[in-house]
Amino acid sequence: MAFSDAERAAMHRALELAATPGVPLGPNPRVGCVLLGPDGLEVAEGFHKGAGSPHAEVAALAEAGDEARGTTAVVTLEPCNHTGRTGPCAEALVAAGVRRVVFAQADTNPVATGGGETLRVAGVEVEGGLLADEARALNRAWTFAVENRRPFVTWKFATTLDGRSAAADGTSRWVSSPAARRDTHRLRALCDAILVGTATIEIDDPQLTVRDETDQPLPRQLLRVVMGERDIAADRRVLDGAAETVHLRTRDPLAALTTLFARDVQHVFLEGGPTIAAAFLKAGLVDEVVAYVAPMLLGSGRSAVGDLGIDTIADAFHLDVTDVTVLDGHDGNDTDVRITLSPAPAQRRT
Amino acid sequence: MAFSDAERAAMHRALELAATPGVPLGPNPRVGCVLLGPDGLEVAEGFHKGAGSPHAEVAALAEAGDEARGTTAVVTLEPCNHTGRTGPCAEALVAAGVRRVVFAQADTNPVATGGGETLRVAGVEVEGGLLADEARALNRAWTFAVENRRPFVTWKFATTLDGRSAAADGTSRWVSSPAARRDTHRLRALCDAILVGTATIEIDDPQLTVRDETDQPLPRQLLRVVMGERDIAADRRVLDGAAETVHLRTRDPLAALTTLFARDVQHVFLEGGPTIAAAFLKAGLVDEVVAYVAPMLLGSGRSAVGDLGIDTIADAFHLDVTDVTVLDGHDGNDTDVRITLSPAPAQRRT
Ligand SMILES: NC(=O)c1ccc[n+]([C@@H]2O[C@H](COP(=O)([O-])OP(=O)(O)OC[C@H]3O[C@@H](n4cnc5c(N)ncnc54)[C@H](OP(=O)(O)O)[C@@H]3O)[C@@H](O)[C@H]2O)c1
Ligand SMILES: NC(=O)c1ccc[n+]([C@@H]2O[C@H](COP(=O)([O-])OP(=O)(O)OC[C@H]3O[C@@H](n4cnc5c(N)ncnc54)[C@H](OP(=O)(O)O)[C@@H]3O)[C@@H](O)[C@H]2O)c1
Repeated sequence: MAFSDAERAAMHRALELAATPGVPLGPNPRVGCVLLGPDGLEVAEGFHKGAGSPHAEVAALAEAGDEARGTTAVVTLEPCNHTGRTGPCAEALVAAGVRRVVFAQADTNPVATGGGETLRVAGVEVEGGLLADEARALNRAWTFAVENRRPFVTWKFATTLDGRSAAADGTSRWVSSPAARRDTHRLRALCDAILVGTATIEIDDPQLTVRDETDQPLPRQLLRVVMGERDIAADRRVLDGAAETVHLRTRDPLAALTTLFARDVQHVFLEGGPTIAAAFLKAGLVDEVVAYVAPMLLGSGRSAVGDLGIDTIADAFHLDVTDVTVLDGHDGNDTDVRITLSPAPAQRRT
Repeated sequence: MAFSDAERAAMHRALELAATPGVPLGPNPRVGCVLLGPDGLEVAEGFHKGAGSPHAEVAALAEAGDEARGTTAVVTLEPCNHTGRTGPCAEALVAAGVRRVVFAQADTNPVATGGGETLRVAGVEVEGGLLADEARALNRAWTFAVENRRPFVTWKFATTLDGRSAAADGTSRWVSSPAARRDTHRLRALCDAILVGTATIEIDDPQLTVRDETDQPLPRQLLRVVMGERDIAADRRVLDGAAETVHLRTRDPLAALTTLFARDVQHVFLEGGPTIAAAFLKAGLVDEVVAYVAPMLLGSGRSAVGDLGIDTIADAFHLDVTDVTVLDGHDGNDTDVRITLSPAPAQRRT
């Protein structure tokens, strides 16, 4: 069965609702819902505002009250079937007398899946797949994590035009411009955890918090993850209590990701250094690369990427460019180029 | 004295004429000329078609015939004062009875300068500087060479995202995509000479010709320049006669450029390798950088730039980004990023 024009328009609106700016990120997907009356006009709408608050369908049903009876619920994600912090949405829709449910993305999350079936059994008409790609893109990391049972990994690095992350004497402040650093904080804020190797902690002592334009910490901080067998010295800033920190005493990238997934981490921001980045690349566990290329040359110094075990050009690690953005500095000549890439399919382990 | 709207419009047209596609490049600047009648309407126009053919003013005067008398000549470059392959334009304008001359860029070329003065002495009204920046940009390399008594140097290099120009075993075909290689030929064609070090000739044996999309050589080839003290083996393709080749047995970049300037070379395309590029960078003799960044990682292998004698980040060689272009491959995922930069003023010797 096909979808009506009114349903398609309502799904666009539901996607818009789901993407409402300021919705706290977290372990839950972003979801929007629109209730349509038999005349195809909107009766109510709702969206999920983050963990602990009502799901989008429940929010829309509350707004509709008695008018929910006989409506079509248009929702960006298949209604859930489980009782988490809130009751199952499938049951709430049935109880409210909703006649038909149209959803975009199927929910394959093992604990929540089956909502469509529950609805059908209760006599509700159910149709899925309308604008499913748009819905998947909206919750890219959540979708990836649910399907692959591990977090999505974004590797970010800063490099000179000639591939250096530090000069010969080890100095590296600042290979990236203020604009690139601000942009990094913006990208960090979209993730759940930030991961570095023990050597970066030892040498750079970074704080690994998410800060705004005025360098003030944001209310939502990421889980700070340090990976490697060495101890973390007690005076390191990563132990300052400004955010939660976990030390994973392993060198196995997949084991690290599995542990983080169990802690509800769906998107890891891998910030290096070169050694740990190389380990993730070699393991096929990098899903996205963000390179900040600074318009400078060094001619020597530390490489931005550690040894990948590649000896010949035919074995090069290939990526596809997905975005190129010029980040303008305040004075116009302090400009970095941000290149975003995804590893070619053969380079990824999913 | 100010310029009239008609003169301004005519200068835009003259710039357009000067930039006529297909005008052969070479040692002469591109010049356009429009003759305006006393009513402000166009009487004739002309442009320079390359060495040996009439200058723009002479072409316009020929088209105008007797109607040239009493006109205003609007020309992108100050009329020349010297008798080269053609007579001096200043005299031709006087002889034709032109009343007023408006030009954009002053001609500071020692052999041609003084045209404005000649005209004034002969009683012609002369006004310069209208759209001068546009005119200078049109003949960027010519202007630079005339003012600095050496050619403009564009250094082109191909690199992986991590700054490598070849893998650990020396293999480098192809760090750049077919689209990047086509683009390189397009940029080469805009120059007068192509320069590499003796090692590149020894190791890669490149042909250094300019070829079109179907890999056929173009009619106009550049001067092929090999720099370094070593001999060139007789079997090298650079000695195949497909274009003129000169071997400069020096390691001094300024000496090489001075020699080339004396041979009417105004724009050098420096194609490496890393050692010779580093020598030009260190000497402050790179005026533009074109980097083709291939979306691949190697993790080891030869660096795209040789040692620059830089030990600490504070001494990094800084550049300003002037353009970023994504070069799409035929299959959409074979995409290089071209970054064009100019060395920050402190890095240049002019
Ligand atoms: N340009 C950038 O974007 C950027 C970003 C971050 C850091 N950096 C620079 O990188 C430098 C640190 O470089 P780095 O490469 O040594 O640091 P790193 O990658 O942060 O840490 C390397 C350490 O991680 C541990 N480790 C965990 N898993 C591993 C695995 N699978 N394989 C190997 N080691 C593993 C090892 O220590 P254990 O012995 O403890 O196991 C190893 O010595 C810093 O000085 C910083 O300036 C640059
Ligand atoms: N990625 C790219 O865009 C690109 C482009 C071109 C080449 N390459 C690669 O670069 C490799 C060659 O590397 P390379 O750096 O050895 O080649 P190179 O720069 O072409 O040649 C270096 C040689 O040039 C001579 N030379 C002239 N002036 C010099 C100076 N001021 N300082 C030092 N040497 C000077 C020296 O030889 P004498 O003893 O004869 O004086 C020196 O050994 C090739 O294999 C090629 O694959 C890459």
